[in-house]
This record gives sequence, C-alpha cells and structure tokens, in this order.
Amino acid sequence: MGIENDRKLVVNCLPLTEAERAQFTRAAKGMPQEFVGDPAQRGSMNWTAEIPDELKAYATAVIGNITPETCAQCPRLEWLQTWSAGVDKYQHPGILQPGSMLTNATGAYGQSVSEHMFAMMWAIMKNLHIYAVGNPNAAWQDAGRVISPDGKTALIIGTGDIGSHFARLCKSVGMSTIGIRRNPTVEAPGIDHMVGFESLDDVLQYADVIAMCVPSTPSTHHLLNAERIAKLKTDATVINAGRGDAIDTQALADALANGMIRGAGLDVTEPEPLPAASPLWSEPKCLITPHVAGGNHLESTERRIIAIALGNVRCYANGQSLDNRMPLKG
Amino acid sequence: MGIENDRKLVVNCLPLTEAERAQFTRAAKGMPQEFVGDPAQRGSMNWTAEIPDELKAYATAVIGNITPETCAQCPRLEWLQTWSAGVDKYQHPGILQPGSMLTNATGAYGQSVSEHMFAMMWAIMKNLHIYAVGNPNAAWQDAGRVISPDGKTALIIGTGDIGSHFARLCKSVGMSTIGIRRNPTVEAPGIDHMVGFESLDDVLQYADVIAMCVPSTPSTHHLLNAERIAKLKTDATVINAGRGDAIDTQALADALANGMIRGAGLDVTEPEPLPAASPLWSEPKCLITPHVAGGNHLESTERRIIAIALGNVRCYANGQSLDNRMPLKG
Repeated sequence: MGIENDRKLVVNCLPLTEAERAQFTRAAKGMPQEFVGDPAQRGSMNWTAEIPDELKAYATAVIGNITPETCAQCPRLEWLQTWSAGVDKYQHPGILQPGSMLTNATGAYGQSVSEHMFAMMWAIMKNLHIYAVGNPNAAWQDAGRVISPDGKTALIIGTGDIGSHFARLCKSVGMSTIGIRRNPTVEAPGIDHMVGFESLDDVLQYADVIAMCVPSTPSTHHLLNAERIAKLKTDATVINAGRGDAIDTQALADALANGMIRGAGLDVTEPEPLPAASPLWSEPKCLITPHVAGGNHLESTERRIIAIALGNVRCYANGQSLDNRMPLKG
Repeated sequence: MGIENDRKLVVNCLPLTEAERAQFTRAAKGMPQEFVGDPAQRGSMNWTAEIPDELKAYATAVIGNITPETCAQCPRLEWLQTWSAGVDKYQHPGILQPGSMLTNATGAYGQSVSEHMFAMMWAIMKNLHIYAVGNPNAAWQDAGRVISPDGKTALIIGTGDIGSHFARLCKSVGMSTIGIRRNPTVEAPGIDHMVGFESLDDVLQYADVIAMCVPSTPSTHHLLNAERIAKLKTDATVINAGRGDAIDTQALADALANGMIRGAGLDVTEPEPLPAASPLWSEPKCLITPHVAGGNHLESTERRIIAIALGNVRCYANGQSLDNRMPLKG
C-alpha cells in the first residue's frame, strides 16, 4: 500500500449505470479510476472482465474476474476485487504478487444460493420435480405422499453466509436447525444448535433435510459418503449447493436407487457439467440444476456485488483495510 | 334430531387405529357406532366408504364419502360427515332428505394445499420446473434469471382456510399480501390488505403472484380471463389450486406462449384430467400437478379430518349443533 493516491489506478470492470459510476468516482476521492465495464451486461448471466492493453502497465487495482494470465500482465497490481465468492484460481502462488490484496464478493450470494436450496427442498418434499418431468408426456399421475417442512429438522453443513441464510428461511416455515461448523462456539443467525464437524455422525439421524454448503477443501471431499448416507432417515432430502465433491456421487446414486432416502437436489455435481452417462440424470428422485443457484441470476446479487466493491474502493482510497480479504497460498 | 341416542347409529368409515376407535367410542357416550373403515387404508391415497347392507336400514349418521346412491339407500340418514372439503354432489336436491345435516372437512386441507401452492411458487420463481424437465435429457443448460419472493406481493383470490394459510407462508418469507373475498370487511390471518371482488381489476397490476383458491361457482367461472391476464406484470406467476374453471385455459396458454407472464402452476385444470392435446402440457413455463395438493397426501391432513369428525360425533351424541355445516340446495 505504498503507492500514493494519485499514482493509483483502479480499473473497474463492473457493468455500472451512469449513477453508479458517479458513486464510485465519489468513493475514490480523486484517485484515478477507469470504467471499462459494459453497462449492457447488467442483468445478463455473464460479466466479462478485460483490461485494455494500454492500462495494464498502470493498474494498481482491478475490480472484476480477470483471467489469472491478465493478473501477470499487470506489474503494479496490488489489489484484486472479484465479483465471485470463490477465488481459488487467484490464490495459487505466482498469480498475484506476494503481499497483494485479494478480496471477494462473499455476502453477495447468500440470498440467491440459499433461496435456490430452499426452493429445491420444497420441490422435493412436494414431488414437484417428479410431476414436472411427466408434464411433456401429459402424465396425469399421482406421485404419492408429500412432506411438510413444519416441525422438521434441517442439518446445515457449513454455516457461513449461505448456510445462515438458508437456516433463517427454514425457521420461517417452522423448521428446527442444526448447524455444523469448524468452530461450534461461534454462533450463526438462524442456527438453533451448533456442533462441530466431529459431531456430524451423531446428528445425521435427526436430519429431515441435509443442506450442504461447504467449499471444496481436502477435509470436505466426499464428506457425505455411503456410510453417512446410511445413517439418514429414509425420508431425508439431501441438498447440495456448495461444491460437488462434498458428496460421493456413486454412493448418493445408489442410495436414491435403493430408496434409502427421499430425494436429492443438486446444484453442484462431481464433475461439472455432470456427464450424460451419470445415473443421477435419470433418477426420478433427483433434481439437478446446472450450478445456477448463485451467479447473478438474482437481481439483488448484482446490487450486493457492486455495494461490496464500492465499500472497498472507498477503503482503498482512504488507505483503510479492505473487507472480504482472502489469503494467498504458498 | 328427534331420534333418541339409543336409536341412533353412526356408521364410521374412517380408517382408524384401535386407539382412535376408542376415542370415538368415548365421544359417542353410549350411542351405537359401527366401525367399518379399513385401518390398512391409513396413509394411502384413497379411502373407501361403504355401508354394509345390513346397516343401511339403521344408519342415522355416516362418516365418509359414500356414493350419493348409497345415501338414498339409508332411509334414516340425518347426518353425513364427509372427509372431503367439496360436497357439491351431496348438496343437490334428492340426495339427502330435506332437513338432513351435511358437514365437510373444511380446515383439514389448508396446510396441505397452501404448502403445495407455495412450493409451486418457489419452483417457478427459481426455474426448477424447467430444469426438472431437462434432467432426463442430461441438459446442463442455464434457464436464466430468477426471482426472490422477498419484497414481492401476492394477490390471493379466495381467503378461506387455504388462502389464509398461503398468505401466512408468503409473509414468512417477506412478501406482502392482498386478499380478495366477497365481504372485505371480514379479516383473515396473513392478509395485509383485503378488498372485494369488485376491486379485482384494480389490484391485478400489483401482483407478482396470483394465487387462486376459489370454489367452482357461476361467479368464479373464468374469473381470470384474457382481459385480466393482460393486466398482470410480465414477471407474474399464476397459481391455481382451487377449481380449474376459475381460469380461462386458452387465455392462459396464449399468455404463456406469448411471454405475457412468467409462469403458471396448476394443480387443477379445466377439464380434469387435462387432455393430452392441451398446449399447457408442453409449455415450459407451466408446471402441472394432477389435483394432488389436497387429498390425504400429507399425514397431518388425515389427523385433521379425524379430529373434525371426532368433534362432530361428540356434538351429535350431545344433541349440540355440528361444526362445518354446509347447506343443501333446492
């Protein structure tokens, strides 16, 4: 952070309106800022982040998910603000220079991802995924008993922004919530009862819904395996919107085929896209969505991403510490 | 009600457990009661109601949806308690004798039907019906933007047991609710703002969700017609779990095909089953379920039906007025 404000340059790739650009300009307090985002991408599924060649030598800060190669082309880059929550690809050694600041958009996706999980839970409890599949065949056929979430228990594995949002949605419709996190002495809104990962095996039996929203780390790989699935209620519903490899896919497919659980709603799979040969595609009890729970599918997500970036531009201009700092590896 | 208790006979077709039969026996206070229900039907989709021939001459009360023909075979029948909410077929002249009492199971279905409507709303807001249809084809394909119910407005047409339950679910996730009922001075739990049917055209423009739960009457036939659909927001979702003919099917199909509204979730159609040739079956924006929101798909519905019947047996034995009285026609 040894660079004076007038030698700093923020290259802002957000697709901003005129009014929002004015907000960012005010936040920068005279610090130079180039707006290179395409406003036409606002409301679209994908935002592109590209640094014009003539700015690469001067950019000290970039807002946007530029490629790791582009990072290497910006010798003065000291701060990267992503619009994603996941930043794995920027954390590896050699992408950002040691001492650089990496900040993400954690907090922008909680509502979107948790609501998607909640909708999947309701769909499976009410057999809607089964009815929907039959619609093109004009199938007027009863799919059997349904479940009410009222009075049921959700086991939420990973209680950060997304898990806590999901827990509050569950409680709003009469559910109880058990949370699992690394340090169970830290509370989270919406969680009635917090336990550590070491207690996972003891609480599986209570879960009517198992909601997984953990990142991909060595300790979460195949966290939900055959042994643990066997401990679930036969009416349990598994929801995963974290990372696909937190579930042993084959074990889940077997459990669904054998009627060991009620159903599964997966927004993430292992691998992605899920191969066409996967038995999960044709499993009636499984509802698959193509990693769309987050992204900017919800209008409010865009507003939150922009608000996070705006706050950090203000901090950067003032020489204050940034929010949402993520560590670099190695 | 001129019959003495010892000359009364309740023929109880409910699929009761032993403990529940004992409860009904206590409620009857010495009044004769024959249990003819099949306990094995508990938890199944369909309950059958049949009166053994030798009891038809003596039955003064029947609990169960016997056929209208059977009613005529029971000359002393003075009370029929159905396990359905709809009782149209028993209200026609000539089915029950004038002065007979008809009581239904209103109140048993509010949770089940409203939760089904709520699940359909979430599915359509999050494109889950579109993803589910693509699952058997291994379609890993983004279906576009989604909606959050938070901050949105539900217009609930028909604010009885079901509509009021639905309103409370909506409010629990941050929605506002407008209710439509015949007499808008009567409040209903969960409804923020009640208006009369004459104001329907004025409030359609505010609705993000239109939830229809009205019975089939001449005044509700094609209540949602082309003209009214044209007044809806282009992002509006229509849900119908009342009676199919409350919506002009062709007008709805046209609106969906032309992108005039976001989607529709229909548990009731006109006619039922919906003919295979209906364009709604292949409309991606439409989610159809085969009139399953109610019935006894939810365990708690069975318990509520039994509780309503139990209360009325107690009243019948005591010579008190019965709950859930429905008028006979003509």
